[in-house]
Amino acid sequence: MAVPTLQSYIAGRWVGERAAKALTSAINGRVVAHTHEERLDFAEAMSFARGTALPVLLRAHFQDRARVLKALAAYLLERKEVLYAISAHTGATRSDSWIDIEGGIGTLFAYASIGGKDLPSSNVLHEGPAMRLGANNHFIGSHVLVPKRGVALHINAFNFPMWGMLEKFAPSFLAGMPCLVKPATATSYVAEACVRLIVESGLVPAGALQLVIGGTGDLFERLDEADVVTFTGSADTALMLKAHPNLLKKSIPFNAEADSLNCAILAPDVTPDDPEFDLFIKEVAREMTAKAGQKCTAIRRTLVPRPLVDAVATALKARLAKTVVGDPAVDGVRMGALASKAQQADVAERVAQLAQNCELLLSARDGFAPKGEGVGDGAFFAPTLLLARDSVASDAHHLEAFGPVTTLLPYGDFEEALHLATLGRGSLVGTVCTKTPALAAQAVPTFAAWHGRMLVLDREAALESTGHGSPLPKLKHGGPGRAGGGEELGGLRAVKHYLQRCAVQGSPTMISAMTGEYQRGGAVTEGEVHPFRRYFEDVEVGMSLVTHRRTVGEADIVAFGGLSGDYFYMHFDEVAAKASPFGQRIAHGYFVLSAAAGLFVSPAPGPVLANYGLENLRFVTPVAIGDTIQARLTAKRKVDRPPREDQPGYVPQGVIGWDVAVTNQRGELCASYEILTLVAKRHAG
Amino acid sequence: MAVPTLQSYIAGRWVGERAAKALTSAINGRVVAHTHEERLDFAEAMSFARGTALPVLLRAHFQDRARVLKALAAYLLERKEVLYAISAHTGATRSDSWIDIEGGIGTLFAYASIGGKDLPSSNVLHEGPAMRLGANNHFIGSHVLVPKRGVALHINAFNFPMWGMLEKFAPSFLAGMPCLVKPATATSYVAEACVRLIVESGLVPAGALQLVIGGTGDLFERLDEADVVTFTGSADTALMLKAHPNLLKKSIPFNAEADSLNCAILAPDVTPDDPEFDLFIKEVAREMTAKAGQKCTAIRRTLVPRPLVDAVATALKARLAKTVVGDPAVDGVRMGALASKAQQADVAERVAQLAQNCELLLSARDGFAPKGEGVGDGAFFAPTLLLARDSVASDAHHLEAFGPVTTLLPYGDFEEALHLATLGRGSLVGTVCTKTPALAAQAVPTFAAWHGRMLVLDREAALESTGHGSPLPKLKHGGPGRAGGGEELGGLRAVKHYLQRCAVQGSPTMISAMTGEYQRGGAVTEGEVHPFRRYFEDVEVGMSLVTHRRTVGEADIVAFGGLSGDYFYMHFDEVAAKASPFGQRIAHGYFVLSAAAGLFVSPAPGPVLANYGLENLRFVTPVAIGDTIQARLTAKRKVDRPPREDQPGYVPQGVIGWDVAVTNQRGELCASYEILTLVAKRHAG
Repeated sequence: MAVPTLQSYIAGRWVGERAAKALTSAINGRVVAHTHEERLDFAEAMSFARGTALPVLLRAHFQDRARVLKALAAYLLERKEVLYAISAHTGATRSDSWIDIEGGIGTLFAYASIGGKDLPSSNVLHEGPAMRLGANNHFIGSHVLVPKRGVALHINAFNFPMWGMLEKFAPSFLAGMPCLVKPATATSYVAEACVRLIVESGLVPAGALQLVIGGTGDLFERLDEADVVTFTGSADTALMLKAHPNLLKKSIPFNAEADSLNCAILAPDVTPDDPEFDLFIKEVAREMTAKAGQKCTAIRRTLVPRPLVDAVATALKARLAKTVVGDPAVDGVRMGALASKAQQADVAERVAQLAQNCELLLSARDGFAPKGEGVGDGAFFAPTLLLARDSVASDAHHLEAFGPVTTLLPYGDFEEALHLATLGRGSLVGTVCTKTPALAAQAVPTFAAWHGRMLVLDREAALESTGHGSPLPKLKHGGPGRAGGGEELGGLRAVKHYLQRCAVQGSPTMISAMTGEYQRGGAVTEGEVHPFRRYFEDVEVGMSLVTHRRTVGEADIVAFGGLSGDYFYMHFDEVAAKASPFGQRIAHGYFVLSAAAGLFVSPAPGPVLANYGLENLRFVTPVAIGDTIQARLTAKRKVDRPPREDQPGYVPQGVIGWDVAVTNQRGELCASYEILTLVAKRHAG
Repeated sequence: MAVPTLQSYIAGRWVGERAAKALTSAINGRVVAHTHEERLDFAEAMSFARGTALPVLLRAHFQDRARVLKALAAYLLERKEVLYAISAHTGATRSDSWIDIEGGIGTLFAYASIGGKDLPSSNVLHEGPAMRLGANNHFIGSHVLVPKRGVALHINAFNFPMWGMLEKFAPSFLAGMPCLVKPATATSYVAEACVRLIVESGLVPAGALQLVIGGTGDLFERLDEADVVTFTGSADTALMLKAHPNLLKKSIPFNAEADSLNCAILAPDVTPDDPEFDLFIKEVAREMTAKAGQKCTAIRRTLVPRPLVDAVATALKARLAKTVVGDPAVDGVRMGALASKAQQADVAERVAQLAQNCELLLSARDGFAPKGEGVGDGAFFAPTLLLARDSVASDAHHLEAFGPVTTLLPYGDFEEALHLATLGRGSLVGTVCTKTPALAAQAVPTFAAWHGRMLVLDREAALESTGHGSPLPKLKHGGPGRAGGGEELGGLRAVKHYLQRCAVQGSPTMISAMTGEYQRGGAVTEGEVHPFRRYFEDVEVGMSLVTHRRTVGEADIVAFGGLSGDYFYMHFDEVAAKASPFGQRIAHGYFVLSAAAGLFVSPAPGPVLANYGLENLRFVTPVAIGDTIQARLTAKRKVDRPPREDQPGYVPQGVIGWDVAVTNQRGELCASYEILTLVAKRHAG
């Protein structure tokens, strides 16, 4: 098979014919691809992103883009075997590649779902609640987030070429940003294959994803104030890139996620007889061997109570000894190669440095023979276990061997363990293995201050744990200090990193128009038709109904108590109620809620399919016997829902939130809340 | 009066005896203070902050620190006249000083209130909701924010020496960070006076606030990963500081808030007969003259429909002509001086540059005679109005005259106006003056992408508007690009900038312990005593009650419909209900809610004072005729409330949120919500 020359994808064209640098298989050293020699025209790339892709992305809205992500995820999932075949060259086992390929596709699905559930069918995300800025509600304030109208440049690491690309593409695309992706050259053939599939899918607008194979040339000079740069990789490269004068001058956000010296602590409450002991051994061994330890989240520092060091060392060595290393194509192989010979040399050098102040408990010297043909030219590395002579002074706190290597650090008491954890000066993730909730709670103030993510491992969590090393779409990824100080993922947080937040101030009517959400005090429209008799498309934010009134009598309280069984003294005990701050018997709050529903309900079948929930209920002024209540119901916000062709009989629908204000005969607010309804669409009829 | 030598406040001591640089009055050029000559020992300062102040701050919790802020605000407010007297030297009028002094104190009050209302009585802020990470709820995730355990260095601008210090001190102190404040030298005498009062108050722990008069020496080299730097001032200085190698290397957050070319747009719907026209003129004139235009938020670019340029110019000139400039001590003076002669020269130079491509509509040439004695040696500057010859090419988009200066920029249609607004390449704030909600909404996508704050001015907002130029504690301050890319204030957001966010993963029991909030599925304790009969102090998170059961019959539905008036077809129309997705008549959701209250209520007077609200109600599985329901009530979270000695008869109390799960005879979840109660404290007895 001819060795392909990888191509960049710029301005809607594949660029690159002439072979440049050879990229080799991590398994056997054979050349698997070449980069291209042609220099890229980044002026054209940026102009295409800004001029062609951005307007198309912004003609769509959050919900539209979420649907594209979902379709794209499904498209890639159907074609995943193509990607597994290519990924094998990186030295990855099937399960390593699963993290990269299906983990990446899973992130697309996750952001499709986040977008579909939590984002509006517009390009303005209201980050409420709005608040009064004056006493009489003429001037209110809130916050909105809108697309930045710039370009996202993503510079990715070699270890997860596909996941690394998609976990950044998903939120930035959802936010409405065209992306330029620059994968690490060593494994850029995986990213290129993935981008080819994405382009072939025809799902993503032209210019929404451009691919840079090779160097970034003058790209950094071409970035503007509205752009964003993300970087995953080494702390040294992060430092060089973020110091770029153009980034600093234009305050261009730079999000870094750097390798860190992550730790796992075996808490002092765990004995070798506890299931947590075995869980800890498995977790450390898995983090050492998954992706041959080439994970920015891998456990580099293993903190163990001094009396248990031998037990842990013995158990870990036994487990690692059973890990078959070699060409993942060979049956039974559980750990593959490092990404390249260069990595192999680098890890060996760092292990040698670490070993100067450590005892080498397990290494290549203990017999190491990777399985498979031609593996002598591969980049294999033996699982390596070190034991620090001095836990505080150990180089393990600052020297990273980016391979299947961990250092055991003995500690005295738990506070010492927590202190040792901080000596990494900021990590992506750390694990505390304990069976005692109070110890987990004790760890939080110190541990959380120095980590981006904290896993507490116990026998229950282990039933479903996704593991120390796995960033999840809904949880923040990225730690302080040495870990780069960045934030990725974390659900909607990730999307917000690609949006611009702006405070908005004005009258309730103006803020309603600007946020797309009715704000109390804003202009309303009152028509002939009850808002509950309108289809989703026909309801406009601000459509409102003032109900008839109802006088609340003692009989209501008596009947409601009898029916609900709620005989609280404030409703039934004249003596105690008089002595209370309210000074008299008052109606049940839930009666007020129920009576308000009776005031505005429209009984016959209609577009409102269900009232599925309620938010922000506050009982303000109590309703006393003899008070007369009235409700105002106003369409507050609409969230369109994507059609679900997969469910037979599904009625196309959207969510409408209705603002409800129940007042008394003096106009005082008695109850305030939002009810959530599902409302059918017109064409459902 | 002897000219004082200002002192730094380092490690609990006032440092500085020997006079160095002379600081002069902006009004008459007389020397008002000297900086000190002694070099500061920043090693000692940092060590005192980390070693002495930090442990004390962290022995307290968010609620404690909020109380300190409130007491401090009250203390300063009582002594404000001392500060007004000193502030006069800066050239400020009484109302300029009001912004600085009472605006600063108001920010302390605001953060005291935010802390008291929204932060827990611990040092772990749960940023929920927690979410399932596995199908069977054994493994869940959430986020916490904890004090960073570092030091905040605040470098402030000369224009608002007190507000600038307090608006940063308030959230960082609340977050548990010791602060080092370095005010701009020119007006550092105001900051020093304020810090003296704070120290004298004895309210703030030693080392929680240190003051640096003069240069920062080797301070930047001494910063660590857990520290934070904020800067307010010019874009050039921001650029220099944020490029410091130690900041970049350690990923130390640097928050910049830089002067920007803020705009105000008179929208095309406004005619000279509309009240909005006058409001616009007043707003621009006020922003030009308040603090003599030395506000980073002042309106530098005034965008006006081409046909209205003459009308706006005429009205503005008339209004500015009436503004009396001079020594604010003189009666009738409305605008004071620039901060220094150096500023005066700088503004003059920039006006000259701007004028190269502008028509000078109003300037010192039109007659300018500041009132007061000795003002010839002051730093006064005439209100200056320019008219751009070419709105797109105007230097006003990038050249800032930091004084009472604005440039009129004519535009064609509204989209052109919005485009011109973006040419400032990122601003702190912008105003759109319009009477049309649709125009405000049209502006949002472009305008919000390039601004940190957006004010829409109309006749209603004007009744209570706090104005274009005023950052508010609850709204974000800081804009993208040229404005520095930072975020300050914005309510709780500001506190979060000084905390570290960490994702947490584990079993529900562990996450409950770590967040201090009961998570469903976590361990509960069931005792003999009904949780509603326990005082606030005696309720522990996780205390739980399983109620007796209740079978829901058709009679319940009939009775509930009759009482509430809610005859929705799903409850009463057998025919329509059968055709619905539920397939049968179901009980009212509010009946389920009411019946659940009947199941867990404890009728006699007791510690639970009121159920004042409800959150996150979701109706999950409908309750059909014949179903038997049961509720579980579990203490979810506790929020202590500060005692309120000011209210006679006030019962000391706290907030408890209770998780409620209503299930049916098959164990299916029917309704899920949190109820909010006020619970008395034991010693109230």
